Amino acid sequence: MFEKLRAFFERDVAITDEQFEFIKTLFVPKKVNKGEFLLREGEMSKYSVFVASGCLRTYTIDNSGKEHILQFSTENWWTGDLSFRSNAPAQCFIEALEDSEIFLTEIDSIQKLTEYIPGLATFYEAALQKSAAAKNQRIVSSLSATAEERYNDFLKKYPSLIQRVPQRMIASYLGISPETLSRIRKKRSYKK
Amino acid sequence: MFEKLRAFFERDVAITDEQFEFIKTLFVPKKVNKGEFLLREGEMSKYSVFVASGCLRTYTIDNSGKEHILQFSTENWWTGDLSFRSNAPAQCFIEALEDSEIFLTEIDSIQKLTEYIPGLATFYEAALQKSAAAKNQRIVSSLSATAEERYNDFLKKYPSLIQRVPQRMIASYLGISPETLSRIRKKRSYKK
Repeated sequence: MFEKLRAFFERDVAITDEQFEFIKTLFVPKKVNKGEFLLREGEMSKYSVFVASGCLRTYTIDNSGKEHILQFSTENWWTGDLSFRSNAPAQCFIEALEDSEIFLTEIDSIQKLTEYIPGLATFYEAALQKSAAAKNQRIVSSLSATAEERYNDFLKKYPSLIQRVPQRMIASYLGISPETLSRIRKKRSYKK
Repeated sequence: MFEKLRAFFERDVAITDEQFEFIKTLFVPKKVNKGEFLLREGEMSKYSVFVASGCLRTYTIDNSGKEHILQFSTENWWTGDLSFRSNAPAQCFIEALEDSEIFLTEIDSIQKLTEYIPGLATFYEAALQKSAAAKNQRIVSSLSATAEERYNDFLKKYPSLIQRVPQRMIASYLGISPETLSRIRKKRSYKK
């Protein structure tokens, strides 16, 4: 299972065996079953989560009890609740949508890692910036794009998720009702 | 003008005079007039922007020609287009809404800074994470909150912006029409 973590880092930076031994000390491997929760709203979260296999969803529940999905995380993605930064309890739930292999790492691991393997600093910063750019795009799209445009965009970006994630969750991610999503899908299948 | 930059960093980390001299080598001060553009879509952007005084807006224009405001940046905020990461041309426009004093700094300055002043690494990472958390919240709110909730939230978070930024731009930021915003504001003033 650790080899998947190594492969992930080696996409950007060559990792020596010695460095890999150091990485291993910072990551705790864990298997979670479908339906299991890694985090619930209100808990204190101190880990970032790396997904080696499987699929998680990170979501919030608003005051009226409605779920809003922030993120699906499959192989080689990261997730986590960001509240730890201000020492506040988590605002998110993280749930396994499939049996998954994950790694937990404490917040300060990143600093230890980038001190030990300087090449990773640029890599990490680039990842955060890319993630910020993706969020910006999602903001613009949720403010302006039609439900259909948002679904098409989702298909283009995450083709594999369509097969793996229940329709009602994709609807929640897109901020549309399951009925609207079903209508859009029907319309698409007629076009083919 | 550089003192404002120092004060910003010193909110989190004590800076020695020697360190400050190093910081100065990485930041280029610039004054921009109201209406002036710092960046236009399609240009190659290689700077992050720190706002020492004034107000900027960062926005995109969609295929149908509609503006979407990603961010207003006043004193002590940062902005910039994130496309440089993938060496792609900028997707954003950055325009001064007031006469402003800004600093430009190259992308790799952050790494130089955090190597020279290790305390800043944690500070910088925390800032990126906070920004990511804020973006998450904006995604959830744009997917689920009503126009009125979004306006109230904006008022709470950025009370000073209401005075400084044209109504139509606040509407654009919130993803609502200027007419809806004007109706919400009227309703609020009746309540008082």
